[in-house]
Amino acid sequence: MSTQSGAPVGPVLVVGTGLLGTSIGLALRRRGVQVHLRDALPGRAREAADLGAGTDLPPDDPVLLAVVATPPGAVGATVAALQRERFAQGYTDVASVKSRPLRDLELAGGDLSRYVGGHPLAGSERSGPRAGRGDLFEGRPWVLCPGPHSAVEVSAGVEALARACGAVPVVMEAAEHDEAVAVVSHLPHLLAALVAARLAVAADTELAVAGQGVRDVTRIAAGDPALWTEIVRDNAGPVLAQLREVRADLDRLIETLSMPGQGLAGLTELLVRGNQGRARIPGKHGGPATAYQTVPVVVPDHPGELARLLHDAGAAGVNVEDLRIEHSPGQPAGLVELAVAPQAAEALAAALRSRGWTVHGEAPGQSHGGPAATAG
Amino acid sequence: MSTQSGAPVGPVLVVGTGLLGTSIGLALRRRGVQVHLRDALPGRAREAADLGAGTDLPPDDPVLLAVVATPPGAVGATVAALQRERFAQGYTDVASVKSRPLRDLELAGGDLSRYVGGHPLAGSERSGPRAGRGDLFEGRPWVLCPGPHSAVEVSAGVEALARACGAVPVVMEAAEHDEAVAVVSHLPHLLAALVAARLAVAADTELAVAGQGVRDVTRIAAGDPALWTEIVRDNAGPVLAQLREVRADLDRLIETLSMPGQGLAGLTELLVRGNQGRARIPGKHGGPATAYQTVPVVVPDHPGELARLLHDAGAAGVNVEDLRIEHSPGQPAGLVELAVAPQAAEALAAALRSRGWTVHGEAPGQSHGGPAATAG
Repeated sequence: MSTQSGAPVGPVLVVGTGLLGTSIGLALRRRGVQVHLRDALPGRAREAADLGAGTDLPPDDPVLLAVVATPPGAVGATVAALQRERFAQGYTDVASVKSRPLRDLELAGGDLSRYVGGHPLAGSERSGPRAGRGDLFEGRPWVLCPGPHSAVEVSAGVEALARACGAVPVVMEAAEHDEAVAVVSHLPHLLAALVAARLAVAADTELAVAGQGVRDVTRIAAGDPALWTEIVRDNAGPVLAQLREVRADLDRLIETLSMPGQGLAGLTELLVRGNQGRARIPGKHGGPATAYQTVPVVVPDHPGELARLLHDAGAAGVNVEDLRIEHSPGQPAGLVELAVAPQAAEALAAALRSRGWTVHGEAPGQSHGGPAATAG
Repeated sequence: MSTQSGAPVGPVLVVGTGLLGTSIGLALRRRGVQVHLRDALPGRAREAADLGAGTDLPPDDPVLLAVVATPPGAVGATVAALQRERFAQGYTDVASVKSRPLRDLELAGGDLSRYVGGHPLAGSERSGPRAGRGDLFEGRPWVLCPGPHSAVEVSAGVEALARACGAVPVVMEAAEHDEAVAVVSHLPHLLAALVAARLAVAADTELAVAGQGVRDVTRIAAGDPALWTEIVRDNAGPVLAQLREVRADLDRLIETLSMPGQGLAGLTELLVRGNQGRARIPGKHGGPATAYQTVPVVVPDHPGELARLLHDAGAAGVNVEDLRIEHSPGQPAGLVELAVAPQAAEALAAALRSRGWTVHGEAPGQSHGGPAATAG
């Protein structure tokens, strides 16, 4: 089969049938692409095949594309080994870092012209073939990193693969990709861990006043330490550069607070830069961040109340763009913030009030950032 | 009137009719308590009075309780001045720090036995009398900090005030309160700003791969820089202690990553402590953190779809405890994670599938922390 661009997709060899490899197999099989599965662990390729991700029989002839879905540290050596046996016309991978596989491939004497690195921005808290899903990549960005030596037809083939899996291809250089994930993924993870580590040694009574802010900041700190150790290790350079910048800001902050007689401009300046950075995160559908208005509604903690609220919002003809449920200790009723287009906020509040809901405030505030003083 | 404990609540003098002062007036008036309003800004007490928060006429006799709702830096001097004129039998405040007002009151020669500090954990992104709401404190913790010199009847009076406003009183020492908000509120805010400040100087292409993780971590970084400068300044001691601990952890992290030859145990150890701290945040209703199971459902981005989903969940007899909508760039459909009691997850997934919903995964994962690898 072929995609919109006309580039053929298969046959494909998937090497490593964990979550990502199996999901790629499932996605391609749904579109009729021929998929061969291979895994170093005995029985794992067979398990993925039994789930419908392809066949565990080796291909008779070189395939169009080999997708290496091993752990990141093994990608370069695996691609080089496959290339030596001429398993495929083109090679890609799905590792969450992109410079290291390229370096490893070069060191292993591989053919850089036949390799285009990839990173689908999709995942799950689960792993293994049974966690695979044919729709895992649906609508997700899939970063492609063609190098200066990459053959055009290999790039086209990897892009066709991403599209066939339902993803949206995004082209970047490997170094640029690694810097991007360092700042938008690895750094936030490590700083969430730094905050959460302070909670580990806090008193129970101190935790009793925890609000929504600290919950949001530390959510990702619950991630698997072994997995994140590997992720950070394989992108140590860009992560270190970010951490050093943060340390410089932190040093200035500590200095400012230690000498309040010198003024607090350094503190305010950091908070302003925080505002600016937060406002730059792209909004829904990749568009610019939209300043939705929030309509805060008191919702009793009973089954069906949230459904009733959203039904009433829908009956008012308003599309709820986002929704936050605020839990605070000792709160019998929840506060639900409905984010809607600014021009719809007033009408929604009025419609909900007329249906008996308690809606807070007259002129709803902006969604981005939420209540500034709530957690304080 | 009196509360369950029998302590009378009014008459009350509210000094400072901003958001909190006006909300206290509105809450007390709903319960028939006599409320006098006063504000340094001309016309502001009158505005609050017109909104139904009490009268702007001064009391003829000393009131039972004066509530000082001025900016934190003015609390001590204001209480001392009111005490000199014997305005009330007892005094409290609502500032988000508790050591500084106590110190300021002592320095101003005030009577510590007649003062019990308070901090209602409620707020809004809005300010001024018109932002006031009679239900602002409903079900919220209201920290009370009686000192060693506080008279028992003043403590009882302030506790009765908190209850009359619908809040849940939580007793702490002032220093303990300030350490608590440093670790669960001020530190997360500053670290969110440190992450967001990096986004301020990132390339547009780097921001294009932003996922849900960085959105959550940086949400509170959108807070008002001027307000947060004051909050942090007034609690500089405990905040500095937290920041120094974080810097020590950050130094160790940078050292570990700079010398990977020495092993990465330091990185893993930080991530494990992050897991531990995150797990300690209390759950809904102040109970222990519940490990809800999440059921991820694909929801088309059309009006009414979310309502239909929750209606179908309700029809299955399942109470949705929490809900997250995941937005990623370029995604035409949203992924909604429904958090439910673990024993209900499987039945909910089956019920939703039977109604035509696309539900991801067979055995849903845990809610706390969410997908570990999604953002990577």
